[in-house]
Amino acid sequence: MAVLETVFWSASSSRSALAAASTFSKSKANAAVAGLVERGLLEEIGLQASSGGRRPEALRMSRAVGVLACIDLGATSLDVAILSPDMGVLAHHAEPADVRASPAVLLSRIRELLRELLQRCGATRKEVIGIGMGVPGPVAFGSGLLVNPPLMPGWEGLSIRDVLGEDYAAPVFIDNDVNVMALGELWRLHRRLPNFLVVKIGTGIGCGIVCHGEVYRGADGSAGDVGHICVDPDGPRCHCGNLGCVEAMAAGPAISRMAVEAAQSGQSALLAQVLKAQGSISPIDVGQASRAGDAAAHGIVQKAGTRIGQMLASIVNFFNPSHVFIGGGITGIGPLLLASIRQSVYHRSLALSTRHLDIQYAPLGERTGVIGAGVLALQETMRARGSVPETVA
Amino acid sequence: MAVLETVFWSASSSRSALAAASTFSKSKANAAVAGLVERGLLEEIGLQASSGGRRPEALRMSRAVGVLACIDLGATSLDVAILSPDMGVLAHHAEPADVRASPAVLLSRIRELLRELLQRCGATRKEVIGIGMGVPGPVAFGSGLLVNPPLMPGWEGLSIRDVLGEDYAAPVFIDNDVNVMALGELWRLHRRLPNFLVVKIGTGIGCGIVCHGEVYRGADGSAGDVGHICVDPDGPRCHCGNLGCVEAMAAGPAISRMAVEAAQSGQSALLAQVLKAQGSISPIDVGQASRAGDAAAHGIVQKAGTRIGQMLASIVNFFNPSHVFIGGGITGIGPLLLASIRQSVYHRSLALSTRHLDIQYAPLGERTGVIGAGVLALQETMRARGSVPETVA
Repeated sequence: MAVLETVFWSASSSRSALAAASTFSKSKANAAVAGLVERGLLEEIGLQASSGGRRPEALRMSRAVGVLACIDLGATSLDVAILSPDMGVLAHHAEPADVRASPAVLLSRIRELLRELLQRCGATRKEVIGIGMGVPGPVAFGSGLLVNPPLMPGWEGLSIRDVLGEDYAAPVFIDNDVNVMALGELWRLHRRLPNFLVVKIGTGIGCGIVCHGEVYRGADGSAGDVGHICVDPDGPRCHCGNLGCVEAMAAGPAISRMAVEAAQSGQSALLAQVLKAQGSISPIDVGQASRAGDAAAHGIVQKAGTRIGQMLASIVNFFNPSHVFIGGGITGIGPLLLASIRQSVYHRSLALSTRHLDIQYAPLGERTGVIGAGVLALQETMRARGSVPETVA
Repeated sequence: MAVLETVFWSASSSRSALAAASTFSKSKANAAVAGLVERGLLEEIGLQASSGGRRPEALRMSRAVGVLACIDLGATSLDVAILSPDMGVLAHHAEPADVRASPAVLLSRIRELLRELLQRCGATRKEVIGIGMGVPGPVAFGSGLLVNPPLMPGWEGLSIRDVLGEDYAAPVFIDNDVNVMALGELWRLHRRLPNFLVVKIGTGIGCGIVCHGEVYRGADGSAGDVGHICVDPDGPRCHCGNLGCVEAMAAGPAISRMAVEAAQSGQSALLAQVLKAQGSISPIDVGQASRAGDAAAHGIVQKAGTRIGQMLASIVNFFNPSHVFIGGGITGIGPLLLASIRQSVYHRSLALSTRHLDIQYAPLGERTGVIGAGVLALQETMRARGSVPETVA
């Protein structure tokens, strides 16, 4: 178990690295690995680059352990994937979705997609050892239930676990979408960064917090709810009732609203063209217009970035993270948004807290959500069973 | 060692509670306790209230283990105390101090006070087993050196450890004043609250963070530097160079500045009287005037509380702590300030993150700093030695 967890969190590890990482002696680690290889839970994947001396063999968790069913539900998008235990994507499907629609319709679509994807990668229902899902709302992690979700009121009290549990014997784990993203990046980084943030900017704005090497959920599970931090006491009214929340001034809908205003007021011929052709303007359209040299679009992106940076400056002063990874649909706007965010944070934060601060788009990109859901599923399945299940192939 | 740490963190524990808290069996815990009592490290302090069955005997670390030298240096105050290993205050002295003055003068005063206080409680220099000190600036915890301290530039690069080490063989541990306060409250709470904040408001504003049951210092040790969070983009310029920092608008000096303005502009006859009599107005004077019914003073306290609450609302949304404990000189203003802070936080924060949130003045009060320094000294001494030292009496 300790060996499997170590292999999982360190991606492909050699036996000696394993012995170093665990409290085992080298000979005990070797024996444990041999046993796991024999049982088909671990497999060797050739030789790693040597750091001097005999080249170590790399290990990874075997596909024979089973597969993971992963769901990343956003406010306007749905990603479903089947992952191998080493987070390889075996099958993946993405489509637009409206989380405000009926939960029954969305959940039945998710069940249908899972069946299709399993078939596509030649896996059976029984091979699924864990199911992980990220949702765009606050989750009581123990029960897996959504609590007062502002974007998805119809889901309150509904047990996603029970619904998905009808198809699979495997356990189902639900968490907030940004916590799941944070878990994905934590795995990618092999847990080597103990204190960082993942900020998702899409329809709303949320933040996943990694503290002392673990995802931090707060006293009531609502930690990271940064969308309603005030960035302008004289700003517009937010759907939460307060004035000048960063979400109301810089998330996707705010960017679209500013773009429509620019189109209608004659400030931007290009955005007016987009509005006429499509009937709406997405944040991605604004990014494209900005790259095409449209001054109004450029100004909108900068304004949003500045507001996001203002909010981040406050939490960077408070939390002093080593890295801030930015994900979510809005990253499609491109480098100008990131540059504006950075400039605003460095301008407002203290020298000491930004001396080594690295702000970048989430390196796992669009896959951050499903990979995070896979990490959630595998980690919690291992924890719940106290060991990895027997092979099912 | 595990037993001693458990006794320390749970205050006076019974043997059976110890066995429950540690991984020991009851008989092994009994044997370990007997050994420690025999060596004089633990002592029994009579009977605790029974929860049914035989009344358990309570245990605490013995005075014979030695004493702790504790220093809490604020921007304008100095507290020095000698504590027993169960955080009992054996001798205590407080006096005004100016941290901007020469470090040599202040450190020699601290050494003098420690000698006097030891004498007062009949302890010798050799009995000191650990020295803990909180300072009002960012500290690199490993080296104990101050890093870019805005309030105490003359201290940069100066090893307080070396200076105090001239008098004592015991190890010296230095940390930021709010981290030390957080450690004090963590001990008072027997580590039962895993996620809370301690906010110190005095000359500056800082925040100690307890996350997953440990003091959290951030990637560069500057976590909790909340004094420069912006609460009004059109606010006054702060000494850090930015506009509208909460410290520039609501800490002690800002309150005094607003009071002098009210006195000079004829808004408050009472504050004008104080200014004439003393030549200055302290935040405590403003609190007294407010309680005496002075409307201008009342307005100043409310304004400061609202600004502090605005800053806290942002970090409460982000961190979702269970408790916020407020300490520092400004608490002398009294209940109106706390009420204004609370109102502002509840108004601006999300329902979920404030549902169970408790905001109160730090229960250890003025002793939070020296007790935190004692906890720092004892905890780090035990960690550094891997055990508690032999008795020295």
